[in-house]
Amino acid sequence: MIIDTLIEKIKKTNNPTCVGLDTSFDYLPDNMKAKCKTMDDVGKYILEFNLNLIDKLKGVIPSVKVQIAYYESYGLLGLKAFSETLIAAKKAGLVVIADAKRNDIGATASCYSQAFLGKTLIGDKEFSAFESDYLTVNGYLGTDGIKPFLDDCKKYNKGIFVLVKTSNPSSGQLQDKKFETGETLYEAMGDLVSEWGSDLVGKYGYSSVGAVVGATHKAQAESLRKRFKNLFFLIPGYGAQGGTADDLAVSFDKDGLGGIVNNSRGILCAYKQDKYKGQDYAAAAYNAVAEMQRDIFSALQKK
Amino acid sequence: MIIDTLIEKIKKTNNPTCVGLDTSFDYLPDNMKAKCKTMDDVGKYILEFNLNLIDKLKGVIPSVKVQIAYYESYGLLGLKAFSETLIAAKKAGLVVIADAKRNDIGATASCYSQAFLGKTLIGDKEFSAFESDYLTVNGYLGTDGIKPFLDDCKKYNKGIFVLVKTSNPSSGQLQDKKFETGETLYEAMGDLVSEWGSDLVGKYGYSSVGAVVGATHKAQAESLRKRFKNLFFLIPGYGAQGGTADDLAVSFDKDGLGGIVNNSRGILCAYKQDKYKGQDYAAAAYNAVAEMQRDIFSALQKK
Repeated sequence: MIIDTLIEKIKKTNNPTCVGLDTSFDYLPDNMKAKCKTMDDVGKYILEFNLNLIDKLKGVIPSVKVQIAYYESYGLLGLKAFSETLIAAKKAGLVVIADAKRNDIGATASCYSQAFLGKTLIGDKEFSAFESDYLTVNGYLGTDGIKPFLDDCKKYNKGIFVLVKTSNPSSGQLQDKKFETGETLYEAMGDLVSEWGSDLVGKYGYSSVGAVVGATHKAQAESLRKRFKNLFFLIPGYGAQGGTADDLAVSFDKDGLGGIVNNSRGILCAYKQDKYKGQDYAAAAYNAVAEMQRDIFSALQKK
Repeated sequence: MIIDTLIEKIKKTNNPTCVGLDTSFDYLPDNMKAKCKTMDDVGKYILEFNLNLIDKLKGVIPSVKVQIAYYESYGLLGLKAFSETLIAAKKAGLVVIADAKRNDIGATASCYSQAFLGKTLIGDKEFSAFESDYLTVNGYLGTDGIKPFLDDCKKYNKGIFVLVKTSNPSSGQLQDKKFETGETLYEAMGDLVSEWGSDLVGKYGYSSVGAVVGATHKAQAESLRKRFKNLFFLIPGYGAQGGTADDLAVSFDKDGLGGIVNNSRGILCAYKQDKYKGQDYAAAAYNAVAEMQRDIFSALQKK
């Protein structure tokens, strides 16, 4: 099961870190930016940047998360870079998370699922639109909008992470509101996610249907970890968004498992920080990953 | 304001119908399907199908909704057809709704907003990734995930439709749950949407920030129409999903305004129905639109 593969890669690298390849034009080094005369160049250099990072980091991280919004903002040529980044990350042995937060009614959700997790049938030929192991999804529409993804998770050994408690400041506006039955919206969403993933639990006790739980909301993360033993967390919000290793340590179990922590800007733009001055972007990213790994382990040991 | 443009086109065509260009390979006529030997062909014939429909329908409908999931399932060549469909619909004078249900934290939502509503800045050059007037979005993340879209709505005269009460069977699982404060999740979402759109209200009293309210849940639509006088509804679920003209009439005001009703399969695949036998797909779609227009008007007159 893909969750077991992810956990084994985390164990092997001893690193529950996911590098977020949210590669904006603004994050490129000046010498690359200067060479971008056309949109085609932008796509080309974003891809080159990603490929160099993947090559440098592939031995020390288990996974990358590729946020499609950044690529979509550069149109079709941006999406070509997105697609090629997924393929390269997969070839490099990384677990690939497409962060696209897809959601729709059943028939339409099937198309999204085909695009990212399953296969598209054209006549009698199967075709893979985008190569990913995991897709992030939004569960606001309820079970029938999620079922197509679950079917493809089973058929093609894939996983999803469903938004439960997001890392942004106003996530509580709806998610923290309490229902008359006593639980909050994020807890009710967690209940559904847990149910959706109940027959996709792997050998480490976690399901291939996981939850997005931000590092920036410690109390909610702690209550979710207690409530759901089988939910593996994709944890955004560390670093630039303000989440600390101490905040996110509550999401892990006593064996140091239970989540993977994403960092995007903190790794991609490490070369702009004073402490990595003089290092190229790949070397700075490598050192920033090592520092993040130490930071998380130190927090987990304090637990 | 874009909402005024949409309402004026509805008045001019006397037709609150939006044709959903959810063009799947399976919807193409057999002679087109037979010519599809490569993925490039699939993109090409889907686009040709859409262009013929746009050309036939442009005088009798105010708007099209293009569901990106279908195109995404055909990869980059599908997305090229998506992009060219948007451009052609815009050129034909239609209000173009990109149905992509985007959602993310602020910084990432900005990229989505740039992609569909605003402009992407590369150095000092502005670039439009995808040409649309409206984008559908999901508000589960709260205000800071929506703000980038609102900013672009103001700057570029665009609109959004936020998921409030969706048309699928299990939409009630979370959306109909009641908070301890007395309102349901769909009402609480409606409250936010109404607030988000409060300074984008046009001359007909409706806001460019509208709500997705399915035709399949009449009681909820009725309560939403009473609660929110300024919310314009994008109404999916008519036809193939089971919503009737009587069900959706509750979403309209006494002047026959207040919503636009989407129909996808019922129009695109009309040529497969017995009653349109012998007609090509564009002629059958044209007649199906006229039938839908009569059906909705008859229900509105009964009110």
